Amino acid sequence: MIVRISSGIPGLDKLVGGGGGSFAENTVTLVYGPPKVGKSVFSYQFAFEGLRNNEPCLYISTDYGLKDIERNIANFGWNLDEYIENESFYFIDAISTIAGVEVESKPNYFLSSVHNPTDIMVKLGMAMRQIISKSPRFRSVLDSLTTLMAFNDEVLIVRVLTVYIMRIKESGGTAIVTYTEGSASSKVENMLKAIVDNIIHLDGENLTIEAMIGGGKVKGQYDITPKGIVVD
Amino acid sequence: MIVRISSGIPGLDKLVGGGGGSFAENTVTLVYGPPKVGKSVFSYQFAFEGLRNNEPCLYISTDYGLKDIERNIANFGWNLDEYIENESFYFIDAISTIAGVEVESKPNYFLSSVHNPTDIMVKLGMAMRQIISKSPRFRSVLDSLTTLMAFNDEVLIVRVLTVYIMRIKESGGTAIVTYTEGSASSKVENMLKAIVDNIIHLDGENLTIEAMIGGGKVKGQYDITPKGIVVD
Amino acid sequence: MIVRISSGIPGLDKLVGGGGGSFAENTVTLVYGPPKVGKSVFSYQFAFEGLRNNEPCLYISTDYGLKDIERNIANFGWNLDEYIENESFYFIDAISTIAGVEVESKPNYFLSSVHNPTDIMVKLGMAMRQIISKSPRFRSVLDSLTTLMAFNDEVLIVRVLTVYIMRIKESGGTAIVTYTEGSASSKVENMLKAIVDNIIHLDGENLTIEAMIGGGKVKGQYDITPKGIVVD
Amino acid sequence: MIVRISSGIPGLDKLVGGGGGSFAENTVTLVYGPPKVGKSVFSYQFAFEGLRNNEPCLYISTDYGLKDIERNIANFGWNLDEYIENESFYFIDAISTIAGVEVESKPNYFLSSVHNPTDIMVKLGMAMRQIISKSPRFRSVLDSLTTLMAFNDEVLIVRVLTVYIMRIKESGGTAIVTYTEGSASSKVENMLKAIVDNIIHLDGENLTIEAMIGGGKVKGQYDITPKGIVVD
Amino acid sequence: MIVRISSGIPGLDKLVGGGGGSFAENTVTLVYGPPKVGKSVFSYQFAFEGLRNNEPCLYISTDYGLKDIERNIANFGWNLDEYIENESFYFIDAISTIAGVEVESKPNYFLSSVHNPTDIMVKLGMAMRQIISKSPRFRSVLDSLTTLMAFNDEVLIVRVLTVYIMRIKESGGTAIVTYTEGSASSKVENMLKAIVDNIIHLDGENLTIEAMIGGGKVKGQYDITPKGIVVD
Amino acid sequence: MIVRISSGIPGLDKLVGGGGGSFAENTVTLVYGPPKVGKSVFSYQFAFEGLRNNEPCLYISTDYGLKDIERNIANFGWNLDEYIENESFYFIDAISTIAGVEVESKPNYFLSSVHNPTDIMVKLGMAMRQIISKSPRFRSVLDSLTTLMAFNDEVLIVRVLTVYIMRIKESGGTAIVTYTEGSASSKVENMLKAIVDNIIHLDGENLTIEAMIGGGKVKGQYDITPKGIVVD
Repeated sequence: MIVRISSGIPGLDKLVGGGGGSFAENTVTLVYGPPKVGKSVFSYQFAFEGLRNNEPCLYISTDYGLKDIERNIANFGWNLDEYIENESFYFIDAISTIAGVEVESKPNYFLSSVHNPTDIMVKLGMAMRQIISKSPRFRSVLDSLTTLMAFNDEVLIVRVLTVYIMRIKESGGTAIVTYTEGSASSKVENMLKAIVDNIIHLDGENLTIEAMIGGGKVKGQYDITPKGIVVD
Repeated sequence: MIVRISSGIPGLDKLVGGGGGSFAENTVTLVYGPPKVGKSVFSYQFAFEGLRNNEPCLYISTDYGLKDIERNIANFGWNLDEYIENESFYFIDAISTIAGVEVESKPNYFLSSVHNPTDIMVKLGMAMRQIISKSPRFRSVLDSLTTLMAFNDEVLIVRVLTVYIMRIKESGGTAIVTYTEGSASSKVENMLKAIVDNIIHLDGENLTIEAMIGGGKVKGQYDITPKGIVVD
Repeated sequence: MIVRISSGIPGLDKLVGGGGGSFAENTVTLVYGPPKVGKSVFSYQFAFEGLRNNEPCLYISTDYGLKDIERNIANFGWNLDEYIENESFYFIDAISTIAGVEVESKPNYFLSSVHNPTDIMVKLGMAMRQIISKSPRFRSVLDSLTTLMAFNDEVLIVRVLTVYIMRIKESGGTAIVTYTEGSASSKVENMLKAIVDNIIHLDGENLTIEAMIGGGKVKGQYDITPKGIVVD
Repeated sequence: MIVRISSGIPGLDKLVGGGGGSFAENTVTLVYGPPKVGKSVFSYQFAFEGLRNNEPCLYISTDYGLKDIERNIANFGWNLDEYIENESFYFIDAISTIAGVEVESKPNYFLSSVHNPTDIMVKLGMAMRQIISKSPRFRSVLDSLTTLMAFNDEVLIVRVLTVYIMRIKESGGTAIVTYTEGSASSKVENMLKAIVDNIIHLDGENLTIEAMIGGGKVKGQYDITPKGIVVD
Repeated sequence: MIVRISSGIPGLDKLVGGGGGSFAENTVTLVYGPPKVGKSVFSYQFAFEGLRNNEPCLYISTDYGLKDIERNIANFGWNLDEYIENESFYFIDAISTIAGVEVESKPNYFLSSVHNPTDIMVKLGMAMRQIISKSPRFRSVLDSLTTLMAFNDEVLIVRVLTVYIMRIKESGGTAIVTYTEGSASSKVENMLKAIVDNIIHLDGENLTIEAMIGGGKVKGQYDITPKGIVVD
Repeated sequence: MIVRISSGIPGLDKLVGGGGGSFAENTVTLVYGPPKVGKSVFSYQFAFEGLRNNEPCLYISTDYGLKDIERNIANFGWNLDEYIENESFYFIDAISTIAGVEVESKPNYFLSSVHNPTDIMVKLGMAMRQIISKSPRFRSVLDSLTTLMAFNDEVLIVRVLTVYIMRIKESGGTAIVTYTEGSASSKVENMLKAIVDNIIHLDGENLTIEAMIGGGKVKGQYDITPKGIVVD
């Protein structure tokens, strides 16, 4: 019997069908598509939905520092502060160091670098130990693989993702990873699809569930609204 | 006179025709197709069919540890425990080490790594010596080549597969290897097809027998049901 | 609430719509297209529009020295002298050194080289410290990524652009970067599009806004007139 | 005046026409096509036809050991034993060593390795000295180039084939080499076709003579029967 | 106000239109197309037109030595001798050394090598110092980039061309560079087009002005006549 | 005034038109096409036509030793012996050494290797010194570039061909070089076409003159007859 958790995307759980949520617990979902179609917004909604329901979230960010993420999320009317305060939002910042930005220390804030995926995995382990001690389940976001590929060999990132998936799943997590279509070879894209459990494609108009554990292929239209992605 | 063994896939032996099973004994079959079409499920059925008929099985897993495989198989209502207990199921776990997962020791459990295909072949030799001492024939699964290609040069994996095939065949085994279409160059895909005996393609809807020793090319529709793959 | 700044391109602000300017403050826009369609002219207009409104401009040039830029801009009837004099126009000249051209020293003039993107980033930091001390916001142009790619590995330039974007945004800048379509692999082109905020494509006839924060995809015709690019 | 030797393929000599055999003496023929279309069977028939007519055969095998070849050939009702006994069948086994298989010593049996094409050429020289001392003409088979390409750089195999061809021709041999279409770059495929004398393509249905010294391009249908390939 | 100089190609100045010449002074034009369509002939006409009008010419040749160029030009009824004598024709011979051809010394003759583009740039500097001391403007030809690409990494040639363009323009020159379409990657072809000012394509039938400073895209038919290229 | 020499191919001189021969003296012609369309036969006819008319021939062979060439040519009823005897046929054998074939010494016979193009050029120089001392003009054949590309980097062969062309032309030679279409990258194929003077394509049915100094593009049908290639 598959337990599905809510996606946080209005309309998506219904599109998946079956009366429950969208993602089977303890699975990893690839969210991919061309640039600028809402992949990060999708991630924000997934993460925030968990926080709202008392599930800790482990967020790995390769494009924005914490302040930017807070602002991006605030644009949709959601407030991360409370969850940073109560330490249910864990953040691995893999980008601020490369621009020499100074960041303030917080207990659930980890500094790493897109230059060093191994260190990201180390920080992942540190954060997960804390999370597991508090909650039997959590959500995780890795946004995005694309930037990691710009700073490392693309096949190495497939390997890092393999490790990430193994670790998330053995610890009771459910995760989303984002990827910009066409920013790696088709060979690597096929590998990415092979190692995740679920696959969702966004193209700016349609959201296609290409693979979903215990479900079939379905497609729906979507819009990016002031409340985030809404599936019609 | 070719002896064919049962595939464990309802409908497939009939599709192959001739009144016997599907795979000629002592041959190796490539099962390939796009991501998420049931290649692993196919492997589970093939392996379990053998166990049920008292044929030992040597399973090389590059995506899941033993616990995950047990759970995946249990999802279809099949129970591996008995066969692990009576030591007719041999397992080479090539993935748990990369995530630092701790695994409990079992006599028919071998730990190796996708980082080290040579070591996988060494463990293969160790496992086969035990199996051969018990049974003149056995089944083997290698699921999947794709992950090995993510961690090694793809041509090296063709070489490893060549060794695997030589060893399986000289020891009385019949094997299945899985591969995600498009995750290697077309050159390597052609090499893979050249060195196996039988080729089965899954695309989510159709199962095509592209090559089968002593048989012709046939195609059938299939579904992934709660009882596994069923060919119509 | 998104604040949009004026583009300096007659007709473009209207095409974007909403009654304000074109580019959301603190965003980075990729302007790309085939060779010889007006990407540099677009940059001149963007930069000059800011200067006219008392916003300092930080211009990184990889194709022309300061004298050439002055002349190019003068061709459209605009005069940079005043802004060089009052030190609101900052210029990083990354090309003159490679031809051994001798350049006269100016306080807001920085010499660097397309051979050394790291040094360009160092000069960027030096110029930004001056600019920030004077103005809470500024404009920046990087024209173009293409030449940087001819002198360096193309993936390195994606990394440099990532740093550039981080720095511009944390300092209150709004920027344009230009790129000649087809002068890098499609993989790198997709990465470029993934890391910027807005994307404008020019093809000699049409100007297409492929992505704009807070806006949709729109297309308009344009001409290069004696007054620069004019969108119909 | 071209002397043609019989191919051993029922119907092929007639397809070539002219009332004689198929292959001009002292030429090398490339037999190629997709995986699993009968290239090895073709080789068996060519080799066995020679043995039956008292022409020694030098067989280089990269996919099967001697025992497997014997069995494969026996499947078609032909018996190699006699020719191994009377030392008219010479065998270079380039595959058994890679799987650590133990092989029994025979005077006309040479052990080499797909890892070491230079050694294969050395063994070729040793075998040819024996053959030449017995017979002014002989047949040779190299099955297949594909496996050599999996274990070596593909261009190196073109060079090895060049040496093979030179040696076979200066010693009075007539040879067949097999190759799986698409398992090398098209560049290398064109080189292979450039350096052989005759070219035969098999696609599972049609046998096409693409080039034949002293003959034109012709095509016929074929089947793989219990008696081997038969051209209609 | 753009000053255009005469191309020396009958019909071309008219095709460009505007009543003046073809090329804006102080610009660089890429002349490209498939092999054998008249790119070198175009160069001869451009160079000779300048000489006839008392503009010195700096000719960099990668395919022919001085004697061959003289003969090639003489084939169209034009005589270089006078201009070599009065030292208004400067020649950098980058090819004769590679074949070990012995060449006679002349004051305006420079020996370099396609193997050493840096040395070509050094000789360029030496020649330009002489030319500048005599004339405020001159013409230059670089025929062709193709041979430089055969002897060097193609991206290096983009860099060399960047330097060439910078130097020509800061010294008052107007230049033509030729390139054989398809002899570099499309990536490099796009870079070449990005760094020049004007682009002319020849295909054996049509001459297309793909880009021209201050002008639009136009196309005309042409023939190679005993008087050189003539645009209808 | 262009002097054309006879091709030795019945019908070709007429196809070229103008009442003279086919190839302008002192030019180099690329003869290319798919495998097995008669490129070597074309070379034999070109070479033999010269010998018959008292023009020495310098033949560089990368596929056949002298004995094989003699036999191949004899197949068409032509006898090389006389010209070897009177030392008007010079032969550079670049292939026999790689197979360890022993060759008899002759004054106009040079041994080199496809492994060492530089040495081939050295032998070329030695042979040309002898030829030039006897005759103001000669013919040369290089058959084929393809094998040189199998043994060396393909771009290196473009460079070697550049040297070959320079040397042949400055010594009064007229040459043919053959190449198998598709056995190098299209980039290199374009370079080859750029550096020769004339281009002839054979496809098994049609002979197309793609470029000919002083002539246009023409096409004719051809057959390979017992008298060699005949253009209809």
